[in-house]
Amino acid sequence: MNATPATSPVMGTASTMGDVEQLTTTRLIRDAARTYRDQEIVHRTLAGEWKVTDYATSWGRTQRVAAGLAAQGIGPGDRVGLLLWNDLRHFECYFAVPLTGATMVQLNLRLAPQDLAYVIRHSGARTLIVDATLLPLAEGLAPHLPEGTRWIVASDGDLPEAWAGRADAVSYEDLVAGHEPIEDAPDMDERSASGACYTTGTTGRPKGVYYSHRSTWLHSFAVAASTGMTMDDTVMLLTPMFHAQCWGLPYAAVAVGARIVLPGRFTLQDTPLLTDALVEHGVTLAPAAPAILLPMLHHLEQMAQTPHLPGLRFLCGASEPPVALMQGFDRLMGAEIIHAYGATETSPIVSVNRLRPALKAGLTEDEQWDLKRYQGLVVTGVDVKIVDPLGQPLPPGEQNVGEIRVRGPWVTSSYGDDPEATEKGFDDEGYWRSGDVGYLSEDGYLKVSDRMKDVIKSGGEWISTIDLENHMLTVPGVSEAAVVGVPHPKWQERPLALAVRAPGADVTEEQVKDALRARFASWQVPDRVLFVDELDRTSVGKLDKKRLRQAYADALAEGDGPSAPQG
Amino acid sequence: MNATPATSPVMGTASTMGDVEQLTTTRLIRDAARTYRDQEIVHRTLAGEWKVTDYATSWGRTQRVAAGLAAQGIGPGDRVGLLLWNDLRHFECYFAVPLTGATMVQLNLRLAPQDLAYVIRHSGARTLIVDATLLPLAEGLAPHLPEGTRWIVASDGDLPEAWAGRADAVSYEDLVAGHEPIEDAPDMDERSASGACYTTGTTGRPKGVYYSHRSTWLHSFAVAASTGMTMDDTVMLLTPMFHAQCWGLPYAAVAVGARIVLPGRFTLQDTPLLTDALVEHGVTLAPAAPAILLPMLHHLEQMAQTPHLPGLRFLCGASEPPVALMQGFDRLMGAEIIHAYGATETSPIVSVNRLRPALKAGLTEDEQWDLKRYQGLVVTGVDVKIVDPLGQPLPPGEQNVGEIRVRGPWVTSSYGDDPEATEKGFDDEGYWRSGDVGYLSEDGYLKVSDRMKDVIKSGGEWISTIDLENHMLTVPGVSEAAVVGVPHPKWQERPLALAVRAPGADVTEEQVKDALRARFASWQVPDRVLFVDELDRTSVGKLDKKRLRQAYADALAEGDGPSAPQG
Repeated sequence: MNATPATSPVMGTASTMGDVEQLTTTRLIRDAARTYRDQEIVHRTLAGEWKVTDYATSWGRTQRVAAGLAAQGIGPGDRVGLLLWNDLRHFECYFAVPLTGATMVQLNLRLAPQDLAYVIRHSGARTLIVDATLLPLAEGLAPHLPEGTRWIVASDGDLPEAWAGRADAVSYEDLVAGHEPIEDAPDMDERSASGACYTTGTTGRPKGVYYSHRSTWLHSFAVAASTGMTMDDTVMLLTPMFHAQCWGLPYAAVAVGARIVLPGRFTLQDTPLLTDALVEHGVTLAPAAPAILLPMLHHLEQMAQTPHLPGLRFLCGASEPPVALMQGFDRLMGAEIIHAYGATETSPIVSVNRLRPALKAGLTEDEQWDLKRYQGLVVTGVDVKIVDPLGQPLPPGEQNVGEIRVRGPWVTSSYGDDPEATEKGFDDEGYWRSGDVGYLSEDGYLKVSDRMKDVIKSGGEWISTIDLENHMLTVPGVSEAAVVGVPHPKWQERPLALAVRAPGADVTEEQVKDALRARFASWQVPDRVLFVDELDRTSVGKLDKKRLRQAYADALAEGDGPSAPQG
Repeated sequence: MNATPATSPVMGTASTMGDVEQLTTTRLIRDAARTYRDQEIVHRTLAGEWKVTDYATSWGRTQRVAAGLAAQGIGPGDRVGLLLWNDLRHFECYFAVPLTGATMVQLNLRLAPQDLAYVIRHSGARTLIVDATLLPLAEGLAPHLPEGTRWIVASDGDLPEAWAGRADAVSYEDLVAGHEPIEDAPDMDERSASGACYTTGTTGRPKGVYYSHRSTWLHSFAVAASTGMTMDDTVMLLTPMFHAQCWGLPYAAVAVGARIVLPGRFTLQDTPLLTDALVEHGVTLAPAAPAILLPMLHHLEQMAQTPHLPGLRFLCGASEPPVALMQGFDRLMGAEIIHAYGATETSPIVSVNRLRPALKAGLTEDEQWDLKRYQGLVVTGVDVKIVDPLGQPLPPGEQNVGEIRVRGPWVTSSYGDDPEATEKGFDDEGYWRSGDVGYLSEDGYLKVSDRMKDVIKSGGEWISTIDLENHMLTVPGVSEAAVVGVPHPKWQERPLALAVRAPGADVTEEQVKDALRARFASWQVPDRVLFVDELDRTSVGKLDKKRLRQAYADALAEGDGPSAPQG
């Protein structure tokens, strides 16, 4: 399934070690349940109640679920789809499905139904484990799925009446109650797929990334080493467990035996609840995107007394955290936001922003904050190169902006059963083409400046949008910002800024432009700043620039020239 | 080379990941030199001077040494022997030798010359890298080595006159100066041996353990996860780099990008120097055996003002650290001693003693100290079983003492080119027979109570010696202790205690016996306690019980019966 044939490695003197021992995700949980048996798993039920179990108990349930799945005929080579929230059963499925030898396929609850049906059909999943609250979604999907699709319904109580009597449906808890722990779990090859996620790009159909047992094992320990995660940590899963396997954190937490907090079903509206949970459960590490951290900060700012959590660190990805956001958490909670970079294709950790000890002495406090905006240090095990439009590697340096390409033991080298996407997605050295544009600093920090497709081509120059957007967010009164390229009669494209005002704010177009002029070359400053009520976003909360470009395609066609000459 | 045929793992759905990427030790250093380029390596020269270099610079030298080795014809399938102290060149050789595709063979400077010659011949090493201060040892070995053996002399200055003109010798620094970084390093199969160590058992000839690139990679991250090691740590290598690859810590430090301190040439007499170095260089983690920690504590106790190093933790192996030792470091320095367990055969980490968060609340302070004596929690990835004399597994519990057997991705599954030792050393499930006797507590903590061969068989009962010895060390005035079984006309064997008095102490036999009677069953208490000037030890500082048994074989033959009836 690899895009390029592997060069055959050279065998030297044979080792005497247990190299035949397979690195599997099920070994991670099995050993963790032995070594960290009484480590807590704190989880919130669908009824909103917080409960506590432990590794050993959850592992017992997991083995019973696996037996139940095996009794349904599921085994090596099969795929099982999951439509679940961040709850205990989802955590158990991370291990119960691979324990049968099958592959767990994460289904993004926020995908359009036709995309969801495509993913299910493409993956070949014939059994779906679905949360009871998502049965309406399941019912909508059913007509688009192959005949014979079977359902396992995850629920705290009895199945809804319409589902209770169906021959093609069974209750998750009945699997637990009806089976002894699986005894003859197959000893899987570490190169088998343990789990899979499909990309949610705004262009093209979803593409399948099939994570091996081996890649997940290696990624888990790389995450732990990069974040200093140990069994003394409490890890709360604040990003959806269907996104890049929750950034690999459930596996990493299990690998080191950390305490786990599963917040169950939540949306961005549940910020107060999630903030309280951080405090109540003594969370020390959580994956989080700015999309949830921004409302969380807003909530903190409203509190009479903010909780001090100096050990708390957020592993922050998806988009660049504004400095004001990072400073806000530092000031209000003593919490640290650690910027990291990756994608579904990379398990996802490619880089993590830690300040190297040797750099500390040479940087002012402001420079240290600025450095925290970078995507960070490329972790051991991952190869990154920056290439120009011809695919030639560029040296480090702020001026050497090019496409970021990535390769490594936990980076995909193809898309599952999709030769066309594979052909486009990888270069002839086996690197994955990230589609992100950026550079490596002289100090070795990765910086993403844009998406390839969002770069604005204006009069022969490229204008990156992300730095413009982030700087707009530092202007008082601006709560959301987007910059897109729109057609222009003379310059081919020119940047247009879109901004959402904070409640009650009256910030003006000229104030935003002045702020941008203070930092950027005049030809990089957007011609217009339009204030809007909201910005289109994708199912994962990213700006939907494709739709924004379409909606505002005519915004500069009425004769506005660029506010300053190019060049 | 495996003792048992591997059961063939089952291949499920193929993954799309970069599973062909090889996990090599040279990738660890290459990536670390990129990501942690300015991380310091502090090292002491043979002249006793402390110097500072960094990862990138050392990696540059390493690549030059590799080119020099390759120019001498060394490549995949070759072995290169090392006779070196804990210095910068030794650290570089850890990576330079595997970079050529060859295997680094560690040579224990303290082995008897005939054992050393055996190891070199058995390993097939035809090139030896030797420290200039060890040339007399090299000259003594030379007649026992194959013709054509070549020497690379590590030295800060010119070669000694007798070696300077030799056609079979070259200076290490000339390799560095005379070559550009290696360009065509082979891409090694991860199952190739990166390094090798030979066991130094008191019985039988040394046996070869060949660590794969893969096993070392996996072990490195397991060590980091178990100790919480990150790039913010400063790791000082306080155990010889020829013992089990310095417990894998050079690799683990590189894997996470920690600061490294190399103390160069030192002996137990250098305790004051090493203690000062801990403070001066801000060490936070060091592998150490009680043999060096005990004199270090003694030195600390003499100081007018002890340095406070609350972040410092010792990873302590080789033998059980007495509670008084652990408490002393805690009280005087705020430093923690973390007990760990392993052997040359296990890379070596099998278990590490960390207090599980859930246990904390239920234990008194005394109970927590007592728990720290245990060998600890079996790390994720390693299988441990306790078996009775018939090889049947025993359940957890203090009363279920048996042989400890170990299996895992960084545990050897054979001895190199030694079918006879392999046949004896492994059971039919592929577990390594450790030769240690112990149990797993109900809480999952491993406890070693003796060596199989040191267990005293008295009147049909087993008496373990290690707990007796450790309890003797708690008696004021006793500075060293050993308990051995000696022939007895009636009981087959009876325990005999040997003790060394602390300077100026006048502790008596009855005082020691009273202390033991307070804790052990009367039939377990040694018949005699003899005070001696010193105790025989092996080359690695362990009690040489074989010699002690021989020397005192007649000690109880003069008619002393057991002080109490058996049973």
